[in-house]
Amino acid sequence: MAEDNREVTNLPFLRVVTPFLAAGTDLTGAHVALIGAPFDGTTSFRPGTRFGPERIRSVSYGLETYSPLQDAELSPSWLADVGDLELPLNDTARALEMIEEAVAWLAARGLRPLLLGGEHTVTVGAVRALAGRYPDLVVVQLDAHADWRDEYDGDRLSHATTVRRASEVGGGRRVIQIGIRSGTRQEFQEAAARGDFYPGVGPAVMEEVGKSLAAAGVPVYLTIDIDVLDPAFAPGTGTPEPGGWTSGELLVGVASWARSLPRLVGADLVEVSPPVDVSDITSIIGSKLVRELALLLYQASLRWQ
Amino acid sequence: MAEDNREVTNLPFLRVVTPFLAAGTDLTGAHVALIGAPFDGTTSFRPGTRFGPERIRSVSYGLETYSPLQDAELSPSWLADVGDLELPLNDTARALEMIEEAVAWLAARGLRPLLLGGEHTVTVGAVRALAGRYPDLVVVQLDAHADWRDEYDGDRLSHATTVRRASEVGGGRRVIQIGIRSGTRQEFQEAAARGDFYPGVGPAVMEEVGKSLAAAGVPVYLTIDIDVLDPAFAPGTGTPEPGGWTSGELLVGVASWARSLPRLVGADLVEVSPPVDVSDITSIIGSKLVRELALLLYQASLRWQ
Amino acid sequence: MAEDNREVTNLPFLRVVTPFLAAGTDLTGAHVALIGAPFDGTTSFRPGTRFGPERIRSVSYGLETYSPLQDAELSPSWLADVGDLELPLNDTARALEMIEEAVAWLAARGLRPLLLGGEHTVTVGAVRALAGRYPDLVVVQLDAHADWRDEYDGDRLSHATTVRRASEVGGGRRVIQIGIRSGTRQEFQEAAARGDFYPGVGPAVMEEVGKSLAAAGVPVYLTIDIDVLDPAFAPGTGTPEPGGWTSGELLVGVASWARSLPRLVGADLVEVSPPVDVSDITSIIGSKLVRELALLLYQASLRWQ
Amino acid sequence: MAEDNREVTNLPFLRVVTPFLAAGTDLTGAHVALIGAPFDGTTSFRPGTRFGPERIRSVSYGLETYSPLQDAELSPSWLADVGDLELPLNDTARALEMIEEAVAWLAARGLRPLLLGGEHTVTVGAVRALAGRYPDLVVVQLDAHADWRDEYDGDRLSHATTVRRASEVGGGRRVIQIGIRSGTRQEFQEAAARGDFYPGVGPAVMEEVGKSLAAAGVPVYLTIDIDVLDPAFAPGTGTPEPGGWTSGELLVGVASWARSLPRLVGADLVEVSPPVDVSDITSIIGSKLVRELALLLYQASLRWQ
Amino acid sequence: MAEDNREVTNLPFLRVVTPFLAAGTDLTGAHVALIGAPFDGTTSFRPGTRFGPERIRSVSYGLETYSPLQDAELSPSWLADVGDLELPLNDTARALEMIEEAVAWLAARGLRPLLLGGEHTVTVGAVRALAGRYPDLVVVQLDAHADWRDEYDGDRLSHATTVRRASEVGGGRRVIQIGIRSGTRQEFQEAAARGDFYPGVGPAVMEEVGKSLAAAGVPVYLTIDIDVLDPAFAPGTGTPEPGGWTSGELLVGVASWARSLPRLVGADLVEVSPPVDVSDITSIIGSKLVRELALLLYQASLRWQ
Amino acid sequence: MAEDNREVTNLPFLRVVTPFLAAGTDLTGAHVALIGAPFDGTTSFRPGTRFGPERIRSVSYGLETYSPLQDAELSPSWLADVGDLELPLNDTARALEMIEEAVAWLAARGLRPLLLGGEHTVTVGAVRALAGRYPDLVVVQLDAHADWRDEYDGDRLSHATTVRRASEVGGGRRVIQIGIRSGTRQEFQEAAARGDFYPGVGPAVMEEVGKSLAAAGVPVYLTIDIDVLDPAFAPGTGTPEPGGWTSGELLVGVASWARSLPRLVGADLVEVSPPVDVSDITSIIGSKLVRELALLLYQASLRWQ
Repeated sequence: MAEDNREVTNLPFLRVVTPFLAAGTDLTGAHVALIGAPFDGTTSFRPGTRFGPERIRSVSYGLETYSPLQDAELSPSWLADVGDLELPLNDTARALEMIEEAVAWLAARGLRPLLLGGEHTVTVGAVRALAGRYPDLVVVQLDAHADWRDEYDGDRLSHATTVRRASEVGGGRRVIQIGIRSGTRQEFQEAAARGDFYPGVGPAVMEEVGKSLAAAGVPVYLTIDIDVLDPAFAPGTGTPEPGGWTSGELLVGVASWARSLPRLVGADLVEVSPPVDVSDITSIIGSKLVRELALLLYQASLRWQ
Repeated sequence: MAEDNREVTNLPFLRVVTPFLAAGTDLTGAHVALIGAPFDGTTSFRPGTRFGPERIRSVSYGLETYSPLQDAELSPSWLADVGDLELPLNDTARALEMIEEAVAWLAARGLRPLLLGGEHTVTVGAVRALAGRYPDLVVVQLDAHADWRDEYDGDRLSHATTVRRASEVGGGRRVIQIGIRSGTRQEFQEAAARGDFYPGVGPAVMEEVGKSLAAAGVPVYLTIDIDVLDPAFAPGTGTPEPGGWTSGELLVGVASWARSLPRLVGADLVEVSPPVDVSDITSIIGSKLVRELALLLYQASLRWQ
Repeated sequence: MAEDNREVTNLPFLRVVTPFLAAGTDLTGAHVALIGAPFDGTTSFRPGTRFGPERIRSVSYGLETYSPLQDAELSPSWLADVGDLELPLNDTARALEMIEEAVAWLAARGLRPLLLGGEHTVTVGAVRALAGRYPDLVVVQLDAHADWRDEYDGDRLSHATTVRRASEVGGGRRVIQIGIRSGTRQEFQEAAARGDFYPGVGPAVMEEVGKSLAAAGVPVYLTIDIDVLDPAFAPGTGTPEPGGWTSGELLVGVASWARSLPRLVGADLVEVSPPVDVSDITSIIGSKLVRELALLLYQASLRWQ
Repeated sequence: MAEDNREVTNLPFLRVVTPFLAAGTDLTGAHVALIGAPFDGTTSFRPGTRFGPERIRSVSYGLETYSPLQDAELSPSWLADVGDLELPLNDTARALEMIEEAVAWLAARGLRPLLLGGEHTVTVGAVRALAGRYPDLVVVQLDAHADWRDEYDGDRLSHATTVRRASEVGGGRRVIQIGIRSGTRQEFQEAAARGDFYPGVGPAVMEEVGKSLAAAGVPVYLTIDIDVLDPAFAPGTGTPEPGGWTSGELLVGVASWARSLPRLVGADLVEVSPPVDVSDITSIIGSKLVRELALLLYQASLRWQ
Repeated sequence: MAEDNREVTNLPFLRVVTPFLAAGTDLTGAHVALIGAPFDGTTSFRPGTRFGPERIRSVSYGLETYSPLQDAELSPSWLADVGDLELPLNDTARALEMIEEAVAWLAARGLRPLLLGGEHTVTVGAVRALAGRYPDLVVVQLDAHADWRDEYDGDRLSHATTVRRASEVGGGRRVIQIGIRSGTRQEFQEAAARGDFYPGVGPAVMEEVGKSLAAAGVPVYLTIDIDVLDPAFAPGTGTPEPGGWTSGELLVGVASWARSLPRLVGADLVEVSPPVDVSDITSIIGSKLVRELALLLYQASLRWQ
Repeated sequence: MAEDNREVTNLPFLRVVTPFLAAGTDLTGAHVALIGAPFDGTTSFRPGTRFGPERIRSVSYGLETYSPLQDAELSPSWLADVGDLELPLNDTARALEMIEEAVAWLAARGLRPLLLGGEHTVTVGAVRALAGRYPDLVVVQLDAHADWRDEYDGDRLSHATTVRRASEVGGGRRVIQIGIRSGTRQEFQEAAARGDFYPGVGPAVMEEVGKSLAAAGVPVYLTIDIDVLDPAFAPGTGTPEPGGWTSGELLVGVASWARSLPRLVGADLVEVSPPVDVSDITSIIGSKLVRELALLLYQASLRWQ
């Protein structure tokens, strides 16, 4: 086990890592904080997302710091990478508590958290932390799978129940689901009844949702499950689902938010699984999405509290 | 060599396998029968399709049984997986006879066969069996390659001659070719003269063909060569041909048949080659297509004899 | 989920699979029963052993049924493959109960169980079942890692504590450890004090131990962690540890037991992880070891009760 | 080191290779000459393009010689493959001189060169050779990256400065950049000021540019960096950049030039990197592009001097 | 299809390839001729050896021309690479005739053939050609598998019957089998009765056999099936068999023949299968063996007629 | 580019990385300093060693901190990981100066450097730095290749000339070469004349050399090229050479120095190339060697100045 970051953050379970492209390690003056949550204890089909944060950071050195999509540039002056949480793989409840504690700590210091999963379950910890701070927090989910089961193999805290759990935080919460193309009949029926459900659609819906949220001024948490992409674009994930978005469509959708600029207070990218990736292409699109998400969070921090 | 299924089917060359997602092994009450034809004896460029049936079944455990595309669900009450044929790799003629015998046996019991290749040659056996039962059987081929040569390296029963051989069964037979983007000049010229040839096009043609066939009420055999997809979506195949369909386009095309509902009496999925696949993405889209094809065959069995 | 085997075994959590080379599925007359335990819920470094049983069976078709090492041949007349247990990945305690129940069921019918892991934890379930039947059961472990910690990351049922837990079954049990080359200082010190500890050594020790156990006539459970082999011979495993045995050395060691013939009443092969394997070589040596273990168990069943 | 081709070409640094599909090795009567430039000395992120020419030729045996896109066929009567240059990896300046000398030699004999990279730097050598012959040569670049830096890590001859160097040949030269989606802010700003810059767009721009160049009758050199494609379609490249073209879009774009037929006097395909490819799909689309480029060059040779 | 070598050799089915390290293409003055036989039409388990000759030549560029084992050096003055035979994959009998014709043609010109497989079946063609010239030809086989079946799946010309067929050429022929560790009980029993059978042993037997053959002065054909090596050293082969030789042991064995110098009149290396290789290590040891075999054949040509 | 370590070390070209297992980042009190030199600018065959330091550190988390071979344990109290040098890939001379400067800086503070390559060239920088401090420094090289050429493709600073350059530092220096099995005839002849040359041999020579150096009390720099191992044990390297050591032999050899304890003042591990590795096995043995080397350096620091 390596030296930890405890002097910096007071969090006893953080460890130093090679930082993301152009990210500093100093929290002073930072607006956005990257933090890794390498957890995949509940994954059922193809495990390995625990290696996501490391690989996403590693391949980031092939990226430019400049984003033509947003005409903006990463800088260590506002972006800090605080390292990885050391999470117990066989105790999901405790792992989520640690994520919640870390995200709350960052948010309390005015930093907008950008979480690197890990499996989708990690989102629950982040949403709990931010819902305490922003009671009207809305969750936007880009995903191939509904993740809306009440339990999965008897387990209530699983990658297949993530979004349902997130929706229940603080007694009920709005979740907007985009890109869903797999689930049980019950999940689809409930979603149709509930609304905020956009199965199988692309960047146009994302743009529209962004505009509407920006107009409302509500705080937003954006969670991107990399499997919203087609397996051709993101083979390195636990449960690839054919018939998904292209990388270009997802980038266009994300970039549309740079124009509407909703009040983004946190975000994550989850389910990148390097052991089943091919030639790093999933990590590379993941890395590019992290660049774009960091820029979105920074822009939002300049406009919104 | 494992125990065989001979008590169940009277076919001496079937062996038990791990069944496809949600498929039963009992033929009683079944409407649709999955059967593997792991044959690749004539493959010229990158062999390995003999491992297709096993891998397609294996990855099916990552799928849901529910199809949002068709709003329908797989069930062991109507879907049986009868296992794999044990075919001689170096005797194509005999392998085709065995496939013909097995498919005829299933059809005689009122089951709609869904064949898992193996290379494209296996289609000839299935078409022979069904043409005996349905003299006006029309074959619809989704494929990157015309497969219309009269012989290939001196061989008349090869993956490159499959569709021509299928067209000759019973003294001449209508074949509708969709998605073709590779062949000899002669193959393209003959196809243009013959009609029923839709090179390089996508789901709109498929929808239109489906409607027209449904209106005519003719019995249809649908053969999908996985290489109709672009290599990005299906790298695990013998002869990848760039410039093809996306997974989403193919799924939309197949789902359009759930609406028009032609009189589908058999189908196959061929040329999935796991040894050259990457991160199983070809097997996974193959598996999803099998789910959709099984549902199509079942719906057709409820409407058409 | 596929049809299950419950009519055959009365165990509600078994599912049909493609059987191992030359194994039947009929328990009548069988002496040895293969059973898969695809569990890897506690794996820390490189997950994936849950896919071990499937792949080991799949590659078995490249093997001969005849073993020149033992001059003996597999036969469905005495070898049955009962399929895979469906185990919950996130509930180790329950998974071990299910394994215990299944192994006890087999043993009660006079069958010698041969378990296919899965991670090493599964051994605990098998040892519990057999210790009930054979109070003086001795466990022989071939492994790179001591697996003797009392807890690991706060967990008492983990791949790193397996052998310690196995040693405690029934109030204390002899465990003979062979091939160990990794552990904490404490594990090595305790082992040196305890005896029955043969770090880093090869087939000669195995032969000697076999002779001594055969002479004593005590019932023996043999657990082989594939990582006892060097990573060159078994790259497909969770925690490869350089400096291990060659395949040839392990096969010679196992074959030496065919001559001394200890009273083997059960065995397992664990930690084969196909997702990190290369060109299936770990699954292939795993498959060959299964052949040899099945033959050993059969020979033992003819000589010993 | 193998026998060389010096008797054929008088170039002391050419070596015999397995030729591209349907290419001859005889220069007599040839219009188009394939030549490999396996150089990757300056690559920064993922090296390996030196193996591109070999692999592109190898997989060409899975292609047909007939192109339905252009309704035309490769023939050894007009296509020669002169082999690979033996270039020093650690002396970029000398490597470019050798490429320049070889391309000039071919052009002097009336052959249109089709260069197989290697990294993008090799383009500079070819442009220098052809600019001597065609002073008004226009370079068209299909690429994800601007490659317009003045220096990179202190180096003025690098894959990141290629196109800027090419633009300077002969005191200034028109470069049309299509598909660019990555670069520094400065590169994007300069490009916007300079014009001839089409970031992120597809086949429609390519068709339009082709028509305009054909109308002008200016000599054109087309350089295709395979990373203009999305990483899903071309994972085997040094710096994959998500959000790119599909194979189909690129093929349609290239085929549009067969209709407008600009005065193409040379071309290259660069940055195919087999060691990081998956299942050869990048080499296969590369090979198909070589077929299409050879046909374009041949058609242009019949119409234009 | 590329230009062929027919002017050089009068064999209409040879094609030009990138030559092996330091081999020329001129037959004048040559003593040893490399020739590729990329045939794998009968392979049952994991096909792909047809790509062996290409890949073995390709990786040879990482080798030195000097062999410290034999203190000797490759030179184009005595080594020619005549290219690859174009063999029909689905007509084994015809493929063997073509191999026989080519090898006979080379031998008639005083060249010692060194064949690159392809599957083991190709050996039969070479032995037939040389047995005509050397009636007392002895075959030495290094192999994991006996390959001594009379038929395999009803086929008499298969990789599993190769050595038996070779033994029958010319009415009966001595075959010395070294390294065998897999086969049927019948194969092992017959071999034990026949003699010349050295299962599972290493370089010492090879040295002894070499001395004895050198003393007898009989003409020898050496066939090396790469699977004589353990799968750790040669994963890239059709039927890996654990428990084999190390690369070092095989090289020492081959080098021992450089000292005893039997009358080697031909040799082959077969069953290298690049598609299932990992990081080219099987092709690389294959390439090194080709270097050593070429040197052995050359030394033998200087001493023996 | 990430934050650098300049405050810590005053070296402007160091960057923070995820540290090696159990290494601290604080130089205070440290005896041994890990430093990465990710340079592969001159590699000729299979590039990629620049990714070695990152991957070796990453997989170190699968190791124990305790070494049974030396009965000793890593501790952050004496081991510091100072991060990676940022080296120019296309300027070997400058890269070596930076390495020399960094190693000299560490040595001046009493730290024993442990360098992670990168290609073998990096050794020259380290030897230059230490030769200034220890004029009688002896270099011990474990390697498959002699690396003794005077120039390679016209280059005097290349991976193929490394050891010759190292031998010339300070006007001539003793180099002991162990394990060499590839080179030109001239390299072998010169080495035989020079002495200190142990081709192809194993741990016994290493033990003997260790004892002799310990007795002499001379300062020693140990450089291990991972390709001293057979490709089966270390496929992930630039120029794999069959016929090498096993991992076990190398570990035994290294451990023998823990007993004789020569005056080791620096060491490196070079040529680990993750892009061509399989299942990380080369990085894992590399990581274990780093653990053993760090322990050796620490023990030596306690006994020798």
